[in-house]
Amino acid sequence: MRDSSQLRPLDFDLGAQVHADGSCLIRLGNTHVLCSASLEEKVPGWMKGRGKGWITAEYGMLPRSTHTRTDREAARGKQQGRTVEIQRLIGRSLRQAVDLDKLGERQLTLDCDVLNADGGTRCAAITGAWVALAVALKQAGLEAALVRQVAAVSIGLVERGEGRRGLVLDLEYEEDHLAAVDCNLVAARATAEGDPGFAGGDLELVEFQSTGEGRSFTRGEALALVDLGLAGCAELMARQRAAVG
Amino acid sequence: MRDSSQLRPLDFDLGAQVHADGSCLIRLGNTHVLCSASLEEKVPGWMKGRGKGWITAEYGMLPRSTHTRTDREAARGKQQGRTVEIQRLIGRSLRQAVDLDKLGERQLTLDCDVLNADGGTRCAAITGAWVALAVALKQAGLEAALVRQVAAVSIGLVERGEGRRGLVLDLEYEEDHLAAVDCNLVAARATAEGDPGFAGGDLELVEFQSTGEGRSFTRGEALALVDLGLAGCAELMARQRAAVG
Amino acid sequence: MRDSSQLRPLDFDLGAQVHADGSCLIRLGNTHVLCSASLEEKVPGWMKGRGKGWITAEYGMLPRSTHTRTDREAARGKQQGRTVEIQRLIGRSLRQAVDLDKLGERQLTLDCDVLNADGGTRCAAITGAWVALAVALKQAGLEAALVRQVAAVSIGLVERGEGRRGLVLDLEYEEDHLAAVDCNLVAARATAEGDPGFAGGDLELVEFQSTGEGRSFTRGEALALVDLGLAGCAELMARQRAAVG
Amino acid sequence: MRDSSQLRPLDFDLGAQVHADGSCLIRLGNTHVLCSASLEEKVPGWMKGRGKGWITAEYGMLPRSTHTRTDREAARGKQQGRTVEIQRLIGRSLRQAVDLDKLGERQLTLDCDVLNADGGTRCAAITGAWVALAVALKQAGLEAALVRQVAAVSIGLVERGEGRRGLVLDLEYEEDHLAAVDCNLVAARATAEGDPGFAGGDLELVEFQSTGEGRSFTRGEALALVDLGLAGCAELMARQRAAVG
Amino acid sequence: MRDSSQLRPLDFDLGAQVHADGSCLIRLGNTHVLCSASLEEKVPGWMKGRGKGWITAEYGMLPRSTHTRTDREAARGKQQGRTVEIQRLIGRSLRQAVDLDKLGERQLTLDCDVLNADGGTRCAAITGAWVALAVALKQAGLEAALVRQVAAVSIGLVERGEGRRGLVLDLEYEEDHLAAVDCNLVAARATAEGDPGFAGGDLELVEFQSTGEGRSFTRGEALALVDLGLAGCAELMARQRAAVG
Amino acid sequence: MRDSSQLRPLDFDLGAQVHADGSCLIRLGNTHVLCSASLEEKVPGWMKGRGKGWITAEYGMLPRSTHTRTDREAARGKQQGRTVEIQRLIGRSLRQAVDLDKLGERQLTLDCDVLNADGGTRCAAITGAWVALAVALKQAGLEAALVRQVAAVSIGLVERGEGRRGLVLDLEYEEDHLAAVDCNLVAARATAEGDPGFAGGDLELVEFQSTGEGRSFTRGEALALVDLGLAGCAELMARQRAAVG
Repeated sequence: MRDSSQLRPLDFDLGAQVHADGSCLIRLGNTHVLCSASLEEKVPGWMKGRGKGWITAEYGMLPRSTHTRTDREAARGKQQGRTVEIQRLIGRSLRQAVDLDKLGERQLTLDCDVLNADGGTRCAAITGAWVALAVALKQAGLEAALVRQVAAVSIGLVERGEGRRGLVLDLEYEEDHLAAVDCNLVAARATAEGDPGFAGGDLELVEFQSTGEGRSFTRGEALALVDLGLAGCAELMARQRAAVG
Repeated sequence: MRDSSQLRPLDFDLGAQVHADGSCLIRLGNTHVLCSASLEEKVPGWMKGRGKGWITAEYGMLPRSTHTRTDREAARGKQQGRTVEIQRLIGRSLRQAVDLDKLGERQLTLDCDVLNADGGTRCAAITGAWVALAVALKQAGLEAALVRQVAAVSIGLVERGEGRRGLVLDLEYEEDHLAAVDCNLVAARATAEGDPGFAGGDLELVEFQSTGEGRSFTRGEALALVDLGLAGCAELMARQRAAVG
Repeated sequence: MRDSSQLRPLDFDLGAQVHADGSCLIRLGNTHVLCSASLEEKVPGWMKGRGKGWITAEYGMLPRSTHTRTDREAARGKQQGRTVEIQRLIGRSLRQAVDLDKLGERQLTLDCDVLNADGGTRCAAITGAWVALAVALKQAGLEAALVRQVAAVSIGLVERGEGRRGLVLDLEYEEDHLAAVDCNLVAARATAEGDPGFAGGDLELVEFQSTGEGRSFTRGEALALVDLGLAGCAELMARQRAAVG
Repeated sequence: MRDSSQLRPLDFDLGAQVHADGSCLIRLGNTHVLCSASLEEKVPGWMKGRGKGWITAEYGMLPRSTHTRTDREAARGKQQGRTVEIQRLIGRSLRQAVDLDKLGERQLTLDCDVLNADGGTRCAAITGAWVALAVALKQAGLEAALVRQVAAVSIGLVERGEGRRGLVLDLEYEEDHLAAVDCNLVAARATAEGDPGFAGGDLELVEFQSTGEGRSFTRGEALALVDLGLAGCAELMARQRAAVG
Repeated sequence: MRDSSQLRPLDFDLGAQVHADGSCLIRLGNTHVLCSASLEEKVPGWMKGRGKGWITAEYGMLPRSTHTRTDREAARGKQQGRTVEIQRLIGRSLRQAVDLDKLGERQLTLDCDVLNADGGTRCAAITGAWVALAVALKQAGLEAALVRQVAAVSIGLVERGEGRRGLVLDLEYEEDHLAAVDCNLVAARATAEGDPGFAGGDLELVEFQSTGEGRSFTRGEALALVDLGLAGCAELMARQRAAVG
Repeated sequence: MRDSSQLRPLDFDLGAQVHADGSCLIRLGNTHVLCSASLEEKVPGWMKGRGKGWITAEYGMLPRSTHTRTDREAARGKQQGRTVEIQRLIGRSLRQAVDLDKLGERQLTLDCDVLNADGGTRCAAITGAWVALAVALKQAGLEAALVRQVAAVSIGLVERGEGRRGLVLDLEYEEDHLAAVDCNLVAARATAEGDPGFAGGDLELVEFQSTGEGRSFTRGEALALVDLGLAGCAELMARQRAAVG
């Protein structure tokens, strides 16, 4: 059995989408997300003329990425609430990675499509999208705009079931289902050339969402969850750097 | 100028929707949300036959609740991502207030419509919806199902502007706009007759969402935000109890 | 019991929407409609460059304004036929109040949202929207564009039930339900500074819609309905003038 | 030039839709509407088990029925407000023709599709739909359910233009455009075997909608419009009877 | 019984839509399609400034064109897959008729609405739309842009039923239903003044779609179907020329 | 340069979707389609009680499968006409592979999602979906229902460009773009245990769609395209059998 503070096996398959400006298939256990970055020389109407860029994200799950088939959102003519919530989180998180002034009037669209789902797809999407983004900016000679490294992980308190118990890192679908408290933590760290005011590249929080499922939780529990999540993100970032090279 | 840890003037106008099973117009400064609870003797198809109830929420803003007019979602034929995200949060939070087994095969729908918006509408909606819910359950002789009190407040770190600075409770629209870190905290406490395993009615967290807007934040800052939010919720809960009587 | 030709208790709560250019909560018995006017320095594309303004209206009912909860139109992704029909009527009626040339290239949007429904919501919306419109035009120094006063009332022939019978003014929901003939009448009168060709400020008809519900009606009955409706509008207009001051 | 109180040339082409239970192409000048009645042995869910029938109507315009091409509603994914308003009027009017108890648990759907539009399409649709309905009921041996004859005509006050002036019957598109007051009147008369309480088969009103376009109108003008409309409907009904035979 | 290689009775009623630039009601047995051509002095955004024109088509069926009533697509808010597929085929086929450079920056929209359906509606729509198109181009003095004549027919292999058997031309609904192989063939021929590189005006294929329904088919069968379809199109073209005259 | 009658490098990666009943990632050059089969113990409402099964297909392209990013259909709220046309073709073709009576009251849904697009995605989807279907039926012990093998390939006539010319098999995106005639051919062959009336397992056509792009084509050209397509399908089928084992 995997240790409570251990990530699942992880790898990044770069260039998985041949036409993208940057792309990566992130595989974290049985959670597989295909991430691509598309760079366009234009910004949305409401941002024109400000000399700044924009970053947006879209998220989807293939119908049979899940245990039983999920309806195709394109066929239903509507994205689910969960989808919209996740793609807003991905966009917000990745905008922290980039200096939008240095990006100039360009838009980066990050597409994150889940090929196989086994828990933690939104966190894997953020971690993988950062790799796709980093590749796309390098490719385009815009690495100066990449000022922070961003990664995300799920953590939770599991009190039932046969598997891992207590404070747990990187939950699989089954663990997530059993968790009494369920969190997602997005962390950032300044890159070598990055924001000098961001002292020494320490890992800080960008987003922390924790939800009691059936019970509430104390401030002490919240703090323990934060600490485990930061540790997990530190490890993910080491792996991202190795992948981008 | 209001103190950093002070709530805006608050009142609850009960019975504002004459046909509802329970209703309340919550006014928190210039943020006014009309909340109603509708109790139906049926549950969604996927919950039938389990002897349990269900709670769901919907949220909307009147087009001219905002500084400039916002498009009507019914006319656009689509709820915005933000709307969907908020109504999911309200539903999740209020399900913590009720023992769904004791509710029986009934559905409670909480409608939260913003008449005037000046920051913190989702938190005011949660705080007001709990009052509407408590009234509806009493009315229906189902008070045994009300096992927890739930309230929510916004907190933030404000580093710019003419007004309140630093760690700030219950942000107005203008403050929210300036905040470097922006949080919503939902807290719960067992009611007198409530869940006995929930020791002594202490205030705990149900949901904590914190987002860095343009910068990241440390675990120490996260903790200070949690503490201020819990204090704000304690005060809101005293006011809720007085309103429900 | 209310007299057959008597309106329900009526008041106008001005400024109910703090950000609107003009707003008013009209309460006519248990029918409560929040009306706001939003003035924008632009017109729809098809009207550009003509030096004329435009007036449009939108109407909605909060889900629990009704006896049993009605589905939220924003969630269904579609406005009902009844909604569309009513907002077309409100827009058409209020355009009679304004000299669109004097308004200049500006658009006024009238939002009418029903908080509580007990019959006659479309008529209350028109009567209240005129007040919001008058306030907005004064506020903006455009009172010269306000050339007519507009109000609306429901009338009907009731032949069943325990309550009022015969020719009846300002129907409640229950009366409307029982009515054999069901009408809405919109009336207009020139304002003091208004259209000089509109002789002496007499009350005239702007719109008259009468529908037989299960039976047809004679021309004599039609005429009696018109007369009662005009009398009701005369009284509503006195109250509007008092509110606007 | 046609006389002010004269209808346009009129004919009914029965059986124009070969599969329909009853159908008729009504041609009133250059306004051509294809009307069909479809009879099904079922009623909408909310009417089941009451032993009563239901009548509903749908209306559409072919894209090139108009002077310049109109967008196809099916392609836009949405019916316009005007369409919805018209089909509600047609359904309401034709329900007056039928004794829903005698119809039994059956649904009649009236489809009215405008092939060529030159003013008065909604009135022509009602007049033609009655013919399709009468044929369908006869065909099905349900003529006892047909208790009233229904027809509709437009009338108006025209004060500008080169053509007919004053009180005018059956307006063409150009006249409608110029009209200061614009009305639609639906009338009914008991059929031979029809409702005995409906004395002597006199023509009465079922629906009267009058709208001031740019000016208001007096009660005297309203009455004159009613009288001209009733006279027009009497003539239309004679023609309907001849067609149905 | 009609011969296997015989078309149904055919006629073209020109000018059936009085406002259209060109129109024609094609009647092929009980399949009746109203076709119109609308010419606009503009092209879609993506074609602007190229000096070329564009041709697009839309297709619809009236709800009661079919044996039992079909839902109205405008009411469902969505065109069916079949509709979209057919209108793409019509547009593609008719673009072969026109030299888009000679058309200049103009758009031709072909609307094909089925009034009565008895098999072969898409082919009748193509054949009728060519007539409407030819009339519209003549009317506008653009006959030089009309470089090819286009017509379409259905063919099939029928192996069951009481009627025609084997290789069959111009299938009725009932035959189509029974067919083991079901094809649509669109053919073109250069017009007198047309494309000189298109030698001698021989009939060639523009589109050939064959589908096995429940069984597959050999290359020999495919060839026989092509030959019968070309013969049918030759006859249709003679009739088109006579109609346009 | 690849020979005119040569397929691109091809492989099948079985089990690419871990939760599916059968799945396969087909890679044909740079065209990569993820195909899965989902087997459910139910059929659509209109098929209930007949003891027969049903097969349906859905198709999608990831936004960055293409050279420049394509809008996400789920975000637009609508599937494009092309998508609908393709998924109808896939479903129709794969229904030929299965004896629906032997399948029993079960539904098989085939999802085909394009990860990378370089021409021929609909044909690759059919070829890959057959492999996913075969795996799913074996897994479920339903191999008796698999009565035919189905594969598809694109062929075309290319008359311009630097690359392959003339009659060409398995077109890449660039070739497809240049083609004067563009075809898709779906072929079937009885499996060993399959339909005994399908003599000797010869390859026959299931679907043949050919479209002239800017020019028409002769019956001789049509026949040559059929022959090349059948040869390509024979090779694809050998590879499918090897993959399924």
